[in-house]
Amino acid sequence: MKRYRREDEVSYALGITLTFELLKFSPEYATKVYIHSQMQRGESFDKLSSLCKELKIPMEFSDKPFNILSQKENCFCIGEFKKFDRPVSKGANHVVLHNPSNAGNMGTIMRSAAGFGITDLVIITPAVDHFDPKTVRASMGALFHLNISVFSSFEEYKEQYGNREMYPFMLKAKKKLSELKVKKPYSLIFGNEATGLPDSFLNEGTSVIISHSNRIDSLNLPIAASIALYEATKEDF
Amino acid sequence: MKRYRREDEVSYALGITLTFELLKFSPEYATKVYIHSQMQRGESFDKLSSLCKELKIPMEFSDKPFNILSQKENCFCIGEFKKFDRPVSKGANHVVLHNPSNAGNMGTIMRSAAGFGITDLVIITPAVDHFDPKTVRASMGALFHLNISVFSSFEEYKEQYGNREMYPFMLKAKKKLSELKVKKPYSLIFGNEATGLPDSFLNEGTSVIISHSNRIDSLNLPIAASIALYEATKEDF
Repeated sequence: MKRYRREDEVSYALGITLTFELLKFSPEYATKVYIHSQMQRGESFDKLSSLCKELKIPMEFSDKPFNILSQKENCFCIGEFKKFDRPVSKGANHVVLHNPSNAGNMGTIMRSAAGFGITDLVIITPAVDHFDPKTVRASMGALFHLNISVFSSFEEYKEQYGNREMYPFMLKAKKKLSELKVKKPYSLIFGNEATGLPDSFLNEGTSVIISHSNRIDSLNLPIAASIALYEATKEDF
Repeated sequence: MKRYRREDEVSYALGITLTFELLKFSPEYATKVYIHSQMQRGESFDKLSSLCKELKIPMEFSDKPFNILSQKENCFCIGEFKKFDRPVSKGANHVVLHNPSNAGNMGTIMRSAAGFGITDLVIITPAVDHFDPKTVRASMGALFHLNISVFSSFEEYKEQYGNREMYPFMLKAKKKLSELKVKKPYSLIFGNEATGLPDSFLNEGTSVIISHSNRIDSLNLPIAASIALYEATKEDF
């Protein structure tokens, strides 16, 4: 066992909560569950054991993986899973992240997307690793609800999924989010944390701005994406 | 010079961007600017120098504070400031954070609040240090736009500022944010990251929920606060 690397075939759900999310919502990809010697026996452990038995997922009792994979002191359970390829659907609404660079931000966006019922995520590379244990952790397990497709350019994405409404979120956009009526199926598109979307996106569909005061330069990326998700889906909840 | 501690009278804006925010928006509290030997001379440096001269703030050329205060490699400028006491106003809308525990989250909420024109922040202790350099950094300097009052209980806050609409955000609330019409002046109230607001807040004003799917347990705190801020203020932008 080695430290996690992007090229690995498996990744990890660190902690009992994330491991349960894995086993409940993506059991077909779960490969192993590691249990630390300090994990308390009790209701959670029994539930985990019977779930593993039922799903035929081996449990391994060893402290070593924890020293290698986890920095947190109170992590006594790790779910190992095979990285999955579950492409986004043509009829669904998408969140598109163009060159996202921060694992925590990507995970937080996954959590909000799942929260607002959008379970299809498109990633345009270069991008941070969506299977990084840090992403999984920030997603609070929402990753296990998602379909995810990765493309090396926006053009490539459009070729396969172009027949939809495109809403790139940009500071230079004219249409205010609060005045927008989304048409389905749509893609909400967000740029990199530091640089936003390139100007070329002004020509893609309807560009949208979340207007704010001039006291700040911009909103934090997961904040902007979550506000957009809230506004686009609020009639559904 | 020592590492930052909560009981110190001064705190620090790490990096050139934050230092400019300090000098522009809270110059009366700026006490010193530290310059690292690797800071490039050029437009930014000249602007900083003339601003310090104009405001009569001493510049100190020394690498030592950077070793003590900054973990970031590319931080070549630090603005030192006296912690300020600038109470919230009775006529203004407030964001109230009840027992917030994470500096990054608090800073992100400051950034969103300033972005949506709410510049009065109330903190109910126990709470993370709102002057911690990590908070300042996550706020992207928004802290320097804010009035902030700290109370040791919600009751104490109400005694002084009670004559207003209270909107506690809670998963048990009945009123949906998307159906809420806020009345001014108001307080948007948010609980701790892990535990939310205590049930007693169901009896304070109008409790509000940001409805979402059952795929997640809750939204991340700064996400929830920012969505609420967006919805409450969107007619102003």
